[in-house]
Amino acid sequence: MDLTHFDQEGRARMVDVSDKAETARVAVAHGKVTMKPETLERIRSGLIAKGDVLAVAQVAGIMAAKQTAQLIPMCHPLAITGAKLEFKLVEPGEVEIEASVKVYGKTGVEMEALTAVSVAALTIYDMCKAIDKTMTIGEIYLVEKSGGKSGHFVR
Amino acid sequence: MDLTHFDQEGRARMVDVSDKAETARVAVAHGKVTMKPETLERIRSGLIAKGDVLAVAQVAGIMAAKQTAQLIPMCHPLAITGAKLEFKLVEPGEVEIEASVKVYGKTGVEMEALTAVSVAALTIYDMCKAIDKTMTIGEIYLVEKSGGKSGHFVR
Amino acid sequence: MDLTHFDQEGRARMVDVSDKAETARVAVAHGKVTMKPETLERIRSGLIAKGDVLAVAQVAGIMAAKQTAQLIPMCHPLAITGAKLEFKLVEPGEVEIEASVKVYGKTGVEMEALTAVSVAALTIYDMCKAIDKTMTIGEIYLVEKSGGKSGHFVR
Amino acid sequence: MDLTHFDQEGRARMVDVSDKAETARVAVAHGKVTMKPETLERIRSGLIAKGDVLAVAQVAGIMAAKQTAQLIPMCHPLAITGAKLEFKLVEPGEVEIEASVKVYGKTGVEMEALTAVSVAALTIYDMCKAIDKTMTIGEIYLVEKSGGKSGHFVR
Amino acid sequence: MDLTHFDQEGRARMVDVSDKAETARVAVAHGKVTMKPETLERIRSGLIAKGDVLAVAQVAGIMAAKQTAQLIPMCHPLAITGAKLEFKLVEPGEVEIEASVKVYGKTGVEMEALTAVSVAALTIYDMCKAIDKTMTIGEIYLVEKSGGKSGHFVR
Amino acid sequence: MDLTHFDQEGRARMVDVSDKAETARVAVAHGKVTMKPETLERIRSGLIAKGDVLAVAQVAGIMAAKQTAQLIPMCHPLAITGAKLEFKLVEPGEVEIEASVKVYGKTGVEMEALTAVSVAALTIYDMCKAIDKTMTIGEIYLVEKSGGKSGHFVR
Repeated sequence: MDLTHFDQEGRARMVDVSDKAETARVAVAHGKVTMKPETLERIRSGLIAKGDVLAVAQVAGIMAAKQTAQLIPMCHPLAITGAKLEFKLVEPGEVEIEASVKVYGKTGVEMEALTAVSVAALTIYDMCKAIDKTMTIGEIYLVEKSGGKSGHFVR
Repeated sequence: MDLTHFDQEGRARMVDVSDKAETARVAVAHGKVTMKPETLERIRSGLIAKGDVLAVAQVAGIMAAKQTAQLIPMCHPLAITGAKLEFKLVEPGEVEIEASVKVYGKTGVEMEALTAVSVAALTIYDMCKAIDKTMTIGEIYLVEKSGGKSGHFVR
Repeated sequence: MDLTHFDQEGRARMVDVSDKAETARVAVAHGKVTMKPETLERIRSGLIAKGDVLAVAQVAGIMAAKQTAQLIPMCHPLAITGAKLEFKLVEPGEVEIEASVKVYGKTGVEMEALTAVSVAALTIYDMCKAIDKTMTIGEIYLVEKSGGKSGHFVR
Repeated sequence: MDLTHFDQEGRARMVDVSDKAETARVAVAHGKVTMKPETLERIRSGLIAKGDVLAVAQVAGIMAAKQTAQLIPMCHPLAITGAKLEFKLVEPGEVEIEASVKVYGKTGVEMEALTAVSVAALTIYDMCKAIDKTMTIGEIYLVEKSGGKSGHFVR
Repeated sequence: MDLTHFDQEGRARMVDVSDKAETARVAVAHGKVTMKPETLERIRSGLIAKGDVLAVAQVAGIMAAKQTAQLIPMCHPLAITGAKLEFKLVEPGEVEIEASVKVYGKTGVEMEALTAVSVAALTIYDMCKAIDKTMTIGEIYLVEKSGGKSGHFVR
Repeated sequence: MDLTHFDQEGRARMVDVSDKAETARVAVAHGKVTMKPETLERIRSGLIAKGDVLAVAQVAGIMAAKQTAQLIPMCHPLAITGAKLEFKLVEPGEVEIEASVKVYGKTGVEMEALTAVSVAALTIYDMCKAIDKTMTIGEIYLVEKSGGKSGHFVR
């Protein structure tokens, strides 16, 4: 099987999906920000009081999903039909992020979901970096993907 | 110490850096894509033959560094003065990414470096996803940062 | 009835419209810039001589309609199929703006029409601010909307 | 006095500010969304419970300030150094918005402040339009401006 | 026949294509960068060794095709379904560029193909300008266009 | 002399200009659209009556100058301080375009001037393509460049 984003001479291209069928497609992606326990505590306290880091990250993630094709060179532009992000605070020092993106189109939305997770994670980093410079973003992967010829993928 | 991206009522803001001094600033960030050995092999073969995944990821990462303030809500716009990415292929199945960004300005460029790494990683994912749906992006962190009042940080 | 842009836990999301039918949709929005009579005179004279403020505002409004989903966080990206703006000069000191946007899609284009009007108004402001700092932009509202399940709305 | 955004032949241009001094500049802009009392009630309840409309509008407004030069054709690109928005809920049915933007540069930031207010207002509209189609955005004007040759302006 | 991008009063508009049929459409565009023979030699050597100018130009061209509607004011936004660029080195000092873009939609993609060619040419210029300031970009034209009511056009 | 946009291993980078002096810089670029005489006649008639193609092209060119660093991968982001375009109609069938861009910064603005010319030419093409599919864009080159270490260049 080939890296479809290259032609036979090895030049990068946006794969031709003109003849693929339009179907309902969903992709779910996961990511995680690991941080000091006191940083997590700050994020948690914002949920019940002032300064909600996750509210900003959520907006950033959803807006980034719409920017995916401007960021990833060979990614097809898609008019996504839905996007949401969920956060879970895990003791002692982790925020888990899950993004779910939908489209009715000719190609899948895993890059949109992965981009949403990545930018939400970067936003958490940005909002907290004044108090913690050692955060790490990781475990960004595709959880699930349905729709299209390749069938239902579950990690 | 406070999350500076919130005001006293807890509303998000772009921190006022008007009075900070302009200095030369550098930030270096790290990231990693873990993949099947055969995926790494494909990437490696592109370096010496056709279909260079990393050449595309490099362009994507540098362009993303310039998009950082459009992606991260409270991030200051900065006219960066230099950006580069380096990739290291590690057996059996990893691509390590390091991005270095420079600016002469009032605030640092860690978000630019982290964004460059993240988008380069997402691009590697996109270019290889036809042959490997289980890749994981991780270990995205700040390696080093210099310039500005907070001094030289090395992880 | 609920604010559909939030999920049950109160987190913002882009509403899932995957299952809505694609139909022809039109939205018309209105806005107004109030200014000194001599500012209006300048705009009017540009229509018949040199320096056409409204020609610039028109281009800005149409381009902004295409940027709507990048500006309004929970707004769906849509490939609009038509956009136009009309201006009416009203004595002694008003420019009235009307934007009409069309799409064939799963969701309406009122935000696109409202954004076109808003950015056209801001552009008039920008082009005239050297001679009038007291202009006011106002009366931005939806005039009419058709297509989709919610039926024909006329203000 | 002339509309400086046109040259002597009446063609639009971005005014040459190369020789202007860099100074600290601030601009404050105002806007308002008028709505049904029950819509305002929904927004208010989100502040103390779930579904914070204003948190989304705030992020949108700040991100829009950074997009100003991409929206307003003759507007100079500026690396703004600070941006914040404040909202005030006014009975029976108004949200007042005030945006404050700072820069150290050769030209002012009134368009950035006005754009922030406009996009925040459009976002409130978008978030509430499922329950209220008759909202009106208005009273968008410059409140105050300081820095630069033209001196301190207060409306 | 009329310039369709203007209404009857001469104001620019985005032509209403709502009622046009969706069909498969392809456009092919051509462009050329003329340069010193030693500049061409540098580009050629990058193909077999280090520093591949054309790999960067290719990514830039494909990404620009996706930006077309943000650059060309009256151009419809389109979710293109494929894009590729080819380069031919011609002695003594020319790089010929051909871009091919596809869509399934209501309007054609000649502007996308022409924009891809233009930005690829500008990128070649940028990458080589340190050694050659006299390069010229030219012969940008539509080669072929199919799909839609106006039939198959071949130059 | 080297292609500075590549490092010693041949990977593309944004050249580090951190240590270059900030100076006033100007670049002037030229371009041309060749068309049927009747197309030129249409454009000319728009200048004195309805439907001004060049007014739209002018706005597009100036806005594109501000987008340059988002289009050309290794191009530095710059806060340009001035931009203007001039058009000359040449019988029997040519529009000549000249763009002039200024900045006070660490690197030159030739790419901004060339991008402004290119996008203005593409816009003329787009506005006239309904009546002329055989237009050609050409003779895009740098006319003049001043400021910075490399001195005054005149073609």
